[in-house]
Amino acid sequence: MAIVLGPNQYGKAENRVVRITRDSTRHEIRDLNVSTALRGDFSAAHLVGDQSQVLPTDTQKQTAYSYAKEKGVSSIEAYGLELARHFVDDVVPVEGARIEIEEYAWEHAVVDGEEHEHTFVRLGQEVRTASITVEGKGAEQKTWVIGGLKDLVILKSTGSEFHGFLKDEYTLLEPTTDRVMATALVAQWRFAETGATWAEIDWNDVYTGVKRILITKFATIQSLALQQTLYEMGKAVLEEYPFIAEIKFSAPNKHHFLYNLETFGVENNNEVFHADDRPYGLIQATVMRDDAPDAGPAWTPAANLA
Amino acid sequence: MAIVLGPNQYGKAENRVVRITRDSTRHEIRDLNVSTALRGDFSAAHLVGDQSQVLPTDTQKQTAYSYAKEKGVSSIEAYGLELARHFVDDVVPVEGARIEIEEYAWEHAVVDGEEHEHTFVRLGQEVRTASITVEGKGAEQKTWVIGGLKDLVILKSTGSEFHGFLKDEYTLLEPTTDRVMATALVAQWRFAETGATWAEIDWNDVYTGVKRILITKFATIQSLALQQTLYEMGKAVLEEYPFIAEIKFSAPNKHHFLYNLETFGVENNNEVFHADDRPYGLIQATVMRDDAPDAGPAWTPAANLA
Amino acid sequence: MAIVLGPNQYGKAENRVVRITRDSTRHEIRDLNVSTALRGDFSAAHLVGDQSQVLPTDTQKQTAYSYAKEKGVSSIEAYGLELARHFVDDVVPVEGARIEIEEYAWEHAVVDGEEHEHTFVRLGQEVRTASITVEGKGAEQKTWVIGGLKDLVILKSTGSEFHGFLKDEYTLLEPTTDRVMATALVAQWRFAETGATWAEIDWNDVYTGVKRILITKFATIQSLALQQTLYEMGKAVLEEYPFIAEIKFSAPNKHHFLYNLETFGVENNNEVFHADDRPYGLIQATVMRDDAPDAGPAWTPAANLA
Amino acid sequence: MAIVLGPNQYGKAENRVVRITRDSTRHEIRDLNVSTALRGDFSAAHLVGDQSQVLPTDTQKQTAYSYAKEKGVSSIEAYGLELARHFVDDVVPVEGARIEIEEYAWEHAVVDGEEHEHTFVRLGQEVRTASITVEGKGAEQKTWVIGGLKDLVILKSTGSEFHGFLKDEYTLLEPTTDRVMATALVAQWRFAETGATWAEIDWNDVYTGVKRILITKFATIQSLALQQTLYEMGKAVLEEYPFIAEIKFSAPNKHHFLYNLETFGVENNNEVFHADDRPYGLIQATVMRDDAPDAGPAWTPAANLA
Repeated sequence: MAIVLGPNQYGKAENRVVRITRDSTRHEIRDLNVSTALRGDFSAAHLVGDQSQVLPTDTQKQTAYSYAKEKGVSSIEAYGLELARHFVDDVVPVEGARIEIEEYAWEHAVVDGEEHEHTFVRLGQEVRTASITVEGKGAEQKTWVIGGLKDLVILKSTGSEFHGFLKDEYTLLEPTTDRVMATALVAQWRFAETGATWAEIDWNDVYTGVKRILITKFATIQSLALQQTLYEMGKAVLEEYPFIAEIKFSAPNKHHFLYNLETFGVENNNEVFHADDRPYGLIQATVMRDDAPDAGPAWTPAANLA
Repeated sequence: MAIVLGPNQYGKAENRVVRITRDSTRHEIRDLNVSTALRGDFSAAHLVGDQSQVLPTDTQKQTAYSYAKEKGVSSIEAYGLELARHFVDDVVPVEGARIEIEEYAWEHAVVDGEEHEHTFVRLGQEVRTASITVEGKGAEQKTWVIGGLKDLVILKSTGSEFHGFLKDEYTLLEPTTDRVMATALVAQWRFAETGATWAEIDWNDVYTGVKRILITKFATIQSLALQQTLYEMGKAVLEEYPFIAEIKFSAPNKHHFLYNLETFGVENNNEVFHADDRPYGLIQATVMRDDAPDAGPAWTPAANLA
Repeated sequence: MAIVLGPNQYGKAENRVVRITRDSTRHEIRDLNVSTALRGDFSAAHLVGDQSQVLPTDTQKQTAYSYAKEKGVSSIEAYGLELARHFVDDVVPVEGARIEIEEYAWEHAVVDGEEHEHTFVRLGQEVRTASITVEGKGAEQKTWVIGGLKDLVILKSTGSEFHGFLKDEYTLLEPTTDRVMATALVAQWRFAETGATWAEIDWNDVYTGVKRILITKFATIQSLALQQTLYEMGKAVLEEYPFIAEIKFSAPNKHHFLYNLETFGVENNNEVFHADDRPYGLIQATVMRDDAPDAGPAWTPAANLA
Repeated sequence: MAIVLGPNQYGKAENRVVRITRDSTRHEIRDLNVSTALRGDFSAAHLVGDQSQVLPTDTQKQTAYSYAKEKGVSSIEAYGLELARHFVDDVVPVEGARIEIEEYAWEHAVVDGEEHEHTFVRLGQEVRTASITVEGKGAEQKTWVIGGLKDLVILKSTGSEFHGFLKDEYTLLEPTTDRVMATALVAQWRFAETGATWAEIDWNDVYTGVKRILITKFATIQSLALQQTLYEMGKAVLEEYPFIAEIKFSAPNKHHFLYNLETFGVENNNEVFHADDRPYGLIQATVMRDDAPDAGPAWTPAANLA
């Protein structure tokens, strides 16, 4: 029995790259939080402190900022692909790279009914995300791309039921046919080169479309449980986009408890709620094609080593 | 020389009151964070633990939730006035009340181009705020109302200069005639019953109008410093609304540092920036009428005892 | 009636200054978060964008870092006094300065029962704070020093009662003679040159002493309300230190709700609680000497303009 | 090709369970944040909204609170094992359970040199963690236990080097033989029933021992890179505890940048630093036995579905 080095990676997390496009008097802005992680045989660094195969995390940072200009940021998926491929293709000891990006959306400020050319207001709603993984050199190289969003806070004030559930001796919950349902949605969809190559996919267009479908289905399905709602949301996304192989949800059930006003002689017909912080339900589900290509390391986050 | 009880207050902070209006099939939502603080002669509670004059913070909470139905939430200013007056008018030992409210904005989800009747998406942009102070009983009673917003994140990618500043031996900063200027604006405007009574003011309309003016001025003024920009923003608000006596700003200068790409042979003509977290500049300013009525305790936050 | 510039100030917030003392092989560390704010006649900057009287916030930052070496950090109060006096004394347009500092405590790591000379573990408990205000030039100059702490989380599992309180129609709370009482204490004590000059006060020693008194009184007083406990804590501090003129508390009542296990046939004799996040009670009180010298702007935080 | 339900789970996250032991006048406290997640065939809930196999998340919450009394909390590992086994053994549709727990440490307040019996001060340093996974019924049942800690903030002010690293065209970093090294350590160690059964392991004792080893090695190793330091820390833990099969680290390199004071004529011999927030290096590594038993789902967090 020996003690050995297991899975490992290293990188620079949370580079706050802001890219302004100013090719005309109308500027555009992309506001990113970029994390890089490199994988390969870095055992010498761990075992004997030999850094000769280690590209510093500071260098990864410099590259992330420089690529925002050199390659541009047409979308976070495209920019992430450039970065990941660069590390794997151009740095000899690097055998795999993981790039994770968050994007904060801004809109042009509206002044006298018109969009101002160089003033922006941060939207503050959901955060767009992407995770790009590239593994292997040359012809062996494999690539996985995940798009996503997080913190999309949505609520329906009716159209949600929960009843007929399993009971045991610790079950106190009362069934309901009308409740508030709210979540801060995390969704991540994995692309596959099925009927489309990376180069053919319009990443920004897909993002807008998926978000629209998620909101539409959340709104229009009579919910019998958050699980069922999520499944329908995911199914609709997969039906729309043949090159999305699977979608994963993590959805906190943000409880809105009906406030008891009866002792004050005040009727409360689903009108006044307490929005509770913790605990919260947490529902996670995957909707996928049964012939989805292998996910490989696509779902392994940069901050976790499964 | 004796040791005595000085200024004191107590209340229930951060009641997360959510009010759904469902008078028709089209619902509306108001999502509030309500804090109450009561002032008066509570020395017996402090000195000998006698609670007979102390209305529990739990009771304040119950009242906040019940009033959301009993009085409704047409605006946070109106709802806060109801709560504050109730505590002072109806609870004998209470001589003053401070109500502070944050409101998180939601919009109806858009489904197939139409607003869905009972599904909402949280906007996540700025938070609307109000601070209501009521002091004194009966004819002596005085009331102060402050409206506001916080975390309005705005940025201009050009149209901002900073030069000609004072220098000492610790000054390294280079002057610039073109920089990114960004802030997460906090603005609070104090109403006065000047040419309008509380009942005549349309709180929601004023909110929308002030926000529009702030953004417009931020966008259109060629900035020589954040100070000058804030002053012009405040001045425009006061010029528009005769019943606003003063406006206060707290504006972090969220630094966007131009990233040096020169060593990589990459030109960076104000295109790639690092958005830094800390430290940040912090500019605070008041714009007021020279005949503004006395602010009394209006600006003393619930969580501070000046 | 004219629109004018009201109270204003500007500075650099949250400079993360870390000072290592390495005069011997045994190092020491002071880990600070320093905010500066300058006051004076800066109307030209606001009204016409003229920066000639404005010392940049970047310069304030440089000074904060340099003074950590030039003047050292024997205590945050002493270091803050150096900084505040420098800005007022040495920068012509500056008429007042406010320095606010947080300090994060570290201890030497213990290795084989001995303190390691240059390895430290951050304690993570309460944060030490100081607020220094200097106003006026030369003989007119006045100085206020406030020491403090925040986020000292303390709890007693018995020895706390709450009953005999005022009731109205919204009162549902049941009286109790045995509850958990917990708070995340904020305390700030204002020094006065009463029987001691600034130079004679051992700031670090006072800090340790005040903290010890606060914890001791919280522990040993049979509490009839958080108000009474706070008052006794403050009184004890003032009795011990003649040069402390007043002490202010802001104490959230962090509710621990007894969990109802009765339906499961499980007895819960004050043994299992739910620690709730929001809302929370918020008790604020001042204990002071009746001959305390004028507080002037001492209590006006850098991020608020009363 | 069909669309199907993939991996899924659901539970109640962040139950804030506080357990007071009051068997004598000397009380003890365990302050927990408990998350549960159940796995099994819940396809009916997702596909047709049938909840008959779904034990509500509210029931999971009730159980977590009740078990804190029924089973006690001798350690978070033991309590988590009780909860996980209960869900799998006693709830028919549940085939797997994941329990994740954070524990916040408190110490008895010291009053006049003695530990007070029922007053506690929260330590605020690192958070202790545990992740328990149980899968399968009856004789097939498998169990994985992970202990851990997070947010252990440690720093060494010398004894850290970084040089000899790989360079490319984006490399600007200068090598150093003396730098500050700091991290907020996350460590998780997986137990295996190798030479010890679950029942024989003293979970609390192991926790104290691992933490001591981690700090000792961090302090005493001359660091050539964070990677090498982590490896040595992990190796020492595995050498000490035969029943620990592997240990994983996630270690942000919290950069402390030497502040340039040269232009002010002030020498800075590794004495004044700026503690930067973002970006930060992020080093992750696993140290394991080459014969470690299969990790199965042990490393799959409750909030991620690999």
